Amino acid sequence: MQITVWNEFFQERNQPNTAAVYPDGIHTAIGEGLLANDPSLNVGYAWLGQPDDGLAEEVLGNTDVLLWWGHLKHGLVSDDVVARVRRRVLGGMGLILLHSGIESKVASAVLGTTCKMSFWRHDDRELVWTVDPAHPIAQGVPNPLIIDSGEMYGEPLDVPTPSDLVFITSYEGGEVLRSGIGWHVGRGRVFFVSNGHEEHPLYYRDDLRRLLSNVVAWAAPTAPIMEPTGRVANPDRDWWRAATTEGN
Amino acid sequence: MQITVWNEFFQERNQPNTAAVYPDGIHTAIGEGLLANDPSLNVGYAWLGQPDDGLAEEVLGNTDVLLWWGHLKHGLVSDDVVARVRRRVLGGMGLILLHSGIESKVASAVLGTTCKMSFWRHDDRELVWTVDPAHPIAQGVPNPLIIDSGEMYGEPLDVPTPSDLVFITSYEGGEVLRSGIGWHVGRGRVFFVSNGHEEHPLYYRDDLRRLLSNVVAWAAPTAPIMEPTGRVANPDRDWWRAATTEGN
Amino acid sequence: MQITVWNEFFQERNQPNTAAVYPDGIHTAIGEGLLANDPSLNVGYAWLGQPDDGLAEEVLGNTDVLLWWGHLKHGLVSDDVVARVRRRVLGGMGLILLHSGIESKVASAVLGTTCKMSFWRHDDRELVWTVDPAHPIAQGVPNPLIIDSGEMYGEPLDVPTPSDLVFITSYEGGEVLRSGIGWHVGRGRVFFVSNGHEEHPLYYRDDLRRLLSNVVAWAAPTAPIMEPTGRVANPDRDWWRAATTEGN
Amino acid sequence: MQITVWNEFFQERNQPNTAAVYPDGIHTAIGEGLLANDPSLNVGYAWLGQPDDGLAEEVLGNTDVLLWWGHLKHGLVSDDVVARVRRRVLGGMGLILLHSGIESKVASAVLGTTCKMSFWRHDDRELVWTVDPAHPIAQGVPNPLIIDSGEMYGEPLDVPTPSDLVFITSYEGGEVLRSGIGWHVGRGRVFFVSNGHEEHPLYYRDDLRRLLSNVVAWAAPTAPIMEPTGRVANPDRDWWRAATTEGN
Repeated sequence: MQITVWNEFFQERNQPNTAAVYPDGIHTAIGEGLLANDPSLNVGYAWLGQPDDGLAEEVLGNTDVLLWWGHLKHGLVSDDVVARVRRRVLGGMGLILLHSGIESKVASAVLGTTCKMSFWRHDDRELVWTVDPAHPIAQGVPNPLIIDSGEMYGEPLDVPTPSDLVFITSYEGGEVLRSGIGWHVGRGRVFFVSNGHEEHPLYYRDDLRRLLSNVVAWAAPTAPIMEPTGRVANPDRDWWRAATTEGN
Repeated sequence: MQITVWNEFFQERNQPNTAAVYPDGIHTAIGEGLLANDPSLNVGYAWLGQPDDGLAEEVLGNTDVLLWWGHLKHGLVSDDVVARVRRRVLGGMGLILLHSGIESKVASAVLGTTCKMSFWRHDDRELVWTVDPAHPIAQGVPNPLIIDSGEMYGEPLDVPTPSDLVFITSYEGGEVLRSGIGWHVGRGRVFFVSNGHEEHPLYYRDDLRRLLSNVVAWAAPTAPIMEPTGRVANPDRDWWRAATTEGN
Repeated sequence: MQITVWNEFFQERNQPNTAAVYPDGIHTAIGEGLLANDPSLNVGYAWLGQPDDGLAEEVLGNTDVLLWWGHLKHGLVSDDVVARVRRRVLGGMGLILLHSGIESKVASAVLGTTCKMSFWRHDDRELVWTVDPAHPIAQGVPNPLIIDSGEMYGEPLDVPTPSDLVFITSYEGGEVLRSGIGWHVGRGRVFFVSNGHEEHPLYYRDDLRRLLSNVVAWAAPTAPIMEPTGRVANPDRDWWRAATTEGN
Repeated sequence: MQITVWNEFFQERNQPNTAAVYPDGIHTAIGEGLLANDPSLNVGYAWLGQPDDGLAEEVLGNTDVLLWWGHLKHGLVSDDVVARVRRRVLGGMGLILLHSGIESKVASAVLGTTCKMSFWRHDDRELVWTVDPAHPIAQGVPNPLIIDSGEMYGEPLDVPTPSDLVFITSYEGGEVLRSGIGWHVGRGRVFFVSNGHEEHPLYYRDDLRRLLSNVVAWAAPTAPIMEPTGRVANPDRDWWRAATTEGN
């Protein structure tokens, strides 16, 4: 399975407080966490500033699950790349939106809504509560998962009703967020994990890494990824009689 | 529309602190709130200790929406009454579970699971956040609705995945609850509102009364209530050709 | 309540078989059906070819529920109008996608996916089955609703998981469709009704008109429609203490 | 992983047409199908007529996924066994309801509703359509999966709104059914597969066996199964500070 961790990779190269926490880029900390839990993965990295924003057709066309970290530079991602990511997700690729990645252009392209939270604030304590203990993404994750200092994102979050609601986070200031939620989109699965931050070393933590590994397993395609378009057909009555009974 | 507010009516008659807040019973405060918002309703009351626990066939068979308050005496409700309520809900009656009513026998009978919360604690501040601003139950309800002192009920709450998630409550102690959630059950609609308490005068508040009135409107049957059983038929092929096209 | 029925209004003016069935435009037949069930509605019409595609800011800004009929000319709707409709839906306007309107640009803009069905075929018998008898949209609708000749749209339909699944249609050729489904999108509600056709006089039928009137009632905004953007705030801790407790 | 296939095992021993198709019991055909796809499974069998209906505490307490086939003898299953199965499911065991198993006492105990379909008829052609191609249960399953002669079960099916809707079946007679649907119940996952019959050799087919193997993988517990009861605690404020951060 081929994982690609995408990062806008701006703050680590321009802001000392982020560089101090993630000197090799936040993408590296995320990728190493996935590999620590499953060494059989192939993990690649891509970032803003590379040709095609790092996601040329040959990269994306080989990616099974894409993790997306964006924060300050959403607007610099090219519309062509956004359209390419959306098409790939509809065709079956998993997409994981990390923290402020929920406000990226790819999130809005795939989900339709603005994907804006209503509030945010630095440096709030987060408690991540499991509300669906039957969900595979919850397995092995502490309940609650405690983050002493993160960043508050408050409801209403402008996303379509998720098909999967696994975690709800409360903040010390009293706000709440559906912080671990998923959607089936075309042939692909999309998941948002709000907990994480570029100024706190959260992506080195074992519990958050366990959570992310669970999400990758959930989002991984279980069939070959295909083109989402061109499926509309006008078949004769009883066409399915002669159909080869190939699987989905 | 005929509303029945059911109350175990124990604490108001036996515990001074509850009696001081709800001298006429918590059911009266709830019913008067509904009438204040919609004087056209018919509101009746029933309680534990009456014959048939107050819900004889002729009472229940005339009820469109049933609100249920139970707390300390869940076990005293007769199994016959529980079965009768369940049958009526499956046939189309609305059922609104208030606060600890989520742990009643009727809740578990209708929803299947234990309906237990995982944690509780007296006297926590509650913030009730709207997470589905498009939902009619959210309309006119402050966001957040602030309760300075209520009672914490904490996740995981052992209920089936709701079809409607409108409110999430955070507590000062950090816990969270899906505090305003609904289900379609047979021909009926069921909704749980956690916010409310027998020792605090919450049911006199305009904002919580607005919320409850919205829930009643949402849960109200839109077709005649019928028996849920006896629907299994073994019709000839193309039976629907001759079917009278009566509505649902 | 202000209803606007939008129509591409092409086939009625260019194709004799459609003109014979809907000489005044399919929008008129739809609007008259709504008025027959609820004379208190204000119903307006708009179509492709008018300035701003009939949906100038002052028209859309006054619309509570928009019904959308498009079929052959999806591509001619301007991107500006699509963006305007999406913004209005996210702000609270109801949107009803009629038949091939599911493949319109407004559908895809609001829902994110391609909104393509996988198959289609003229002149199939349709049986519209209620699968959620507790849903208000099902009330008064025959079960099944029988359409002797309509048009088959077959699954998979590329839409996000709906929050409301009310009707499933089977076709004589054996295909099926989730033919009556809804979503909460921002502050607005969206519903798709597949049953209907420009060459068959279906929109004159009482049962389909009942169904559409139910959908309009479900999709109608229950709060003032507002701008969806500009909601992200960075408030101080405990900002909600001082919040005016205005409703949603 | 320990699988138990439960069968009422009545028709195979009393009715020649069923005995001819499943001489060793329908449970054996089902179990062998699972083993053909995954030889690493441990598959055991249990049936009505054994002590404790074949599901003594030591059998059930060792079962990870339980498949349930019942048809004519639902009423003979003891209430104690039903309660035991429910408790085990709420604690995390997977439960798969096969065909008429949806009308069993265990189904109703776990899901709350009557679990009755509205119609049935022998010997209808079934087309099983995938409506959620992103769902892992759909992978490798033909679309449509064609069953030349099965048994019609028609909507409305009286179950709570499922969290997972994967397959919809159309019948030659025109009826439809949500034929592959799932629920999260407590810590466990429940799935209903309608397609299958005791008089037709369907459980020997590779495609249906693939579908069932996918369901078993989806329903399998991903954490140790525990008791569902006794979770209600009344902890001090900030109890989670001292919580061992054990996983779910």
